[in-house]
Amino acid sequence: MRRMRTLVLALTGVLVATPLAAQFDLEPHRASADRLIQSALRDSAAYQRLGRLVDGFGHRMTGAPSLERAIDWIVAEMRRDGFENVRKEPVTVTHWVRGVESAELITPRRTKLAMLGLGRSVGTPPQGIRAPVLVVRNFADLRARAAQARGKIVLFNVPFDTTVASFAGYGGAVVYRGAGADSASAVGAVAALVRSVTPRSLRSPHTGGMSYDTSGRLKKIPAAAISVEDAEMLQRMQDRGERIEVRLTMGARTLAPAVSHNVIAELRGSERPDEVIVMGGHIDSWDVGQGAMDDAGGCVAAWEALRLIKQLNVRPKRTIRVVLWTAEEIGLTGANAYRDAHRAEVDKHVLAMESDNGVFRPRALSFGGVAPGLDVMGRIASLLGSVGVYTARAGGPQADISPLYALGVPVASIDTDGSRYFWYHHSEADMIDKLDPVDLARNVAIFAVIANVVANMDGSLGRAR
Amino acid sequence: MRRMRTLVLALTGVLVATPLAAQFDLEPHRASADRLIQSALRDSAAYQRLGRLVDGFGHRMTGAPSLERAIDWIVAEMRRDGFENVRKEPVTVTHWVRGVESAELITPRRTKLAMLGLGRSVGTPPQGIRAPVLVVRNFADLRARAAQARGKIVLFNVPFDTTVASFAGYGGAVVYRGAGADSASAVGAVAALVRSVTPRSLRSPHTGGMSYDTSGRLKKIPAAAISVEDAEMLQRMQDRGERIEVRLTMGARTLAPAVSHNVIAELRGSERPDEVIVMGGHIDSWDVGQGAMDDAGGCVAAWEALRLIKQLNVRPKRTIRVVLWTAEEIGLTGANAYRDAHRAEVDKHVLAMESDNGVFRPRALSFGGVAPGLDVMGRIASLLGSVGVYTARAGGPQADISPLYALGVPVASIDTDGSRYFWYHHSEADMIDKLDPVDLARNVAIFAVIANVVANMDGSLGRAR
Repeated sequence: MRRMRTLVLALTGVLVATPLAAQFDLEPHRASADRLIQSALRDSAAYQRLGRLVDGFGHRMTGAPSLERAIDWIVAEMRRDGFENVRKEPVTVTHWVRGVESAELITPRRTKLAMLGLGRSVGTPPQGIRAPVLVVRNFADLRARAAQARGKIVLFNVPFDTTVASFAGYGGAVVYRGAGADSASAVGAVAALVRSVTPRSLRSPHTGGMSYDTSGRLKKIPAAAISVEDAEMLQRMQDRGERIEVRLTMGARTLAPAVSHNVIAELRGSERPDEVIVMGGHIDSWDVGQGAMDDAGGCVAAWEALRLIKQLNVRPKRTIRVVLWTAEEIGLTGANAYRDAHRAEVDKHVLAMESDNGVFRPRALSFGGVAPGLDVMGRIASLLGSVGVYTARAGGPQADISPLYALGVPVASIDTDGSRYFWYHHSEADMIDKLDPVDLARNVAIFAVIANVVANMDGSLGRAR
Repeated sequence: MRRMRTLVLALTGVLVATPLAAQFDLEPHRASADRLIQSALRDSAAYQRLGRLVDGFGHRMTGAPSLERAIDWIVAEMRRDGFENVRKEPVTVTHWVRGVESAELITPRRTKLAMLGLGRSVGTPPQGIRAPVLVVRNFADLRARAAQARGKIVLFNVPFDTTVASFAGYGGAVVYRGAGADSASAVGAVAALVRSVTPRSLRSPHTGGMSYDTSGRLKKIPAAAISVEDAEMLQRMQDRGERIEVRLTMGARTLAPAVSHNVIAELRGSERPDEVIVMGGHIDSWDVGQGAMDDAGGCVAAWEALRLIKQLNVRPKRTIRVVLWTAEEIGLTGANAYRDAHRAEVDKHVLAMESDNGVFRPRALSFGGVAPGLDVMGRIASLLGSVGVYTARAGGPQADISPLYALGVPVASIDTDGSRYFWYHHSEADMIDKLDPVDLARNVAIFAVIANVVANMDGSLGRAR
């Protein structure tokens, strides 16, 4: 009865002390945490490394040579760093290519629209698709005007809600990027355009993934994002009663599957080497900008954290593993492949951490797991005041650790200032100058401290479910 | 002696009352000012008109058909508005065309740079100019490294100073856009690149005018702007000691001079029709975006102000004239042509106003002239509290009215919130969505009130010099 009550309290998050949390003594970890923080903040080593990665290799689109070249360079550098078991794990990935593409307004006036095709979209015939445009405000608006959509290019002009937290604003609009093509196809449209999912634009289009219904009932129609400015212009034209015609030309194709790689590097545990703390980011990006924020910065944060832990010259009791997942943007493929390849040891994963929200100024820790684990994470947070973090909050997994979380692995991430994330996200503007060296170093420090504490703590964080 | 002292006081701006200002009684103007403000704020007519202009015709580059089409439409609309003496005055203009252009980083990694050639630049050979890059911080840095510049493409990586007012920040950086090519040529460089002159970038390049020394001593080398992000990337590469090579390809050419037009419309004065208040903006733009902010918004502000004054159904005592100058961006050509064509009546120009800083939120009036005139302007400002203006400050002319100011015509403009102006300036982002309908209406109201008061006041504002 008592145990059952404890469990209920744990699940509702109000528990203060449990057998798990009770085993956790923060004090033995304080000195190493301070050393890790000082090492991270002492110089701009992480930022310099990030610069060599993104300036040296550019974007790292799944299937592109630049991704595999970047991976090979990282593996070589990691070996130089002296990590253990540095290796590439092959992953079969979707190989989508953009090809030559354009969107031209024909009527009422000829002008190029700022556009980017959406990932996984089919292409158009070589001469493009020329059709009238119907601008809709949302799915309900499309349903109400379904009779007008046949034979048209449907534009979903859905603003990014800036009155809510940025990831909530993203969530409200990105569904049109993902499912706009299918819903337009269902009412007979010949192509779909979406307003770029961003709260701020300098006529800068934002790409991203989309998907088609796999039942075969819907014709696959091409889908592209246009800039906020262009979406607003077409809206104004429609509001004035003008006939709008656009030619959309997309050379997009999905080629034969390619082979990419997850990157793995470890510090093997001294006492419980089979128990693993995973931390990482995704090494692939979209084929615009440098993918510096999304997500080279997260990769480097985990990588540098491992380097700093190694520099402590105290081998952790559990194994700490950096994983750089591939092909996140094109289907979470590397993350699923990692789960499958490591299925036998998933139950030994004591914590998984990812940084995929931009290595901006840290604000808090996020933890997905049982309440005693959250309590431990809150106590670890108390070591991190000098890098901006004081508390841990309950939260779900970031993308690449969601397959592990679904199998019960507790997850943690850094809640960073997301106010600018979607200005740059999936656009040409995602370059390293948008990131701050000190904020990156703070993210490195936090990953290093959490990983090192959890690797050396006596108790555990429990399972996520 | 007394008169002399008055003059001295006037020039030093401390005068409180003068014969000129003493003649000015604000009260007869209050009712019409209130009516003009209410008319301007009642609806979004100005914004709708601006939308039809910029969505309907797009950018209005000097020499482009879209400029002349827009001018013809404006003339027809102004006639429908019932203005008098609506006409086009021909202006011979520089006809510079961009052609196909690109900048490609070759070494250390192949990637396209976001670029825009600079107005009036010469082009490159068809195969482009491929050369190593030297990044410099300013003119002094170039002089110090002159020996390294020979045969190179010089990049002026000069940040926009965000610690000062935005137009001051612009002034500090734009000299490199204007004169960078010549100073690079003087030390043997083969082309010049400049960091886009903007405090905020989403990899969005900003064009603008440049000029060459006309003495014939310097070889004319091509000049282009690259995005802030790309300039920073080349800087990082140089700082890492990497060899940088770029291929710059520009099809830019200056064709035979073309004919464009200043647009003029009037309400003729009932008592002193030969005395003229001029207000306007420049109708040409760069060949990117819509030129909505720079400067269709200013043109529409003056145009709509005249329409509201006409709707008062009280003919002003002096003539109020809207002038939309052409070819400002490519050499202030329309403004100089207006001065020359109207040389005989310049002394009868009692005030010239321009809006070319963006029709953002008004903050104050700016007046260039003698102190008694500034005093009158300050009293006019007291009518404008409901549209955000309370005071008038001394200030110089905006671009197109500077030739008139040089000949003694007092000038006024609206000091608007310039904090976002250079985010959009001369870039694809200069589209109407960056402007607010209510702020535009406030600018309309202010122009209308000033023009109507000055047209009907008993005294004068004096001469500017």
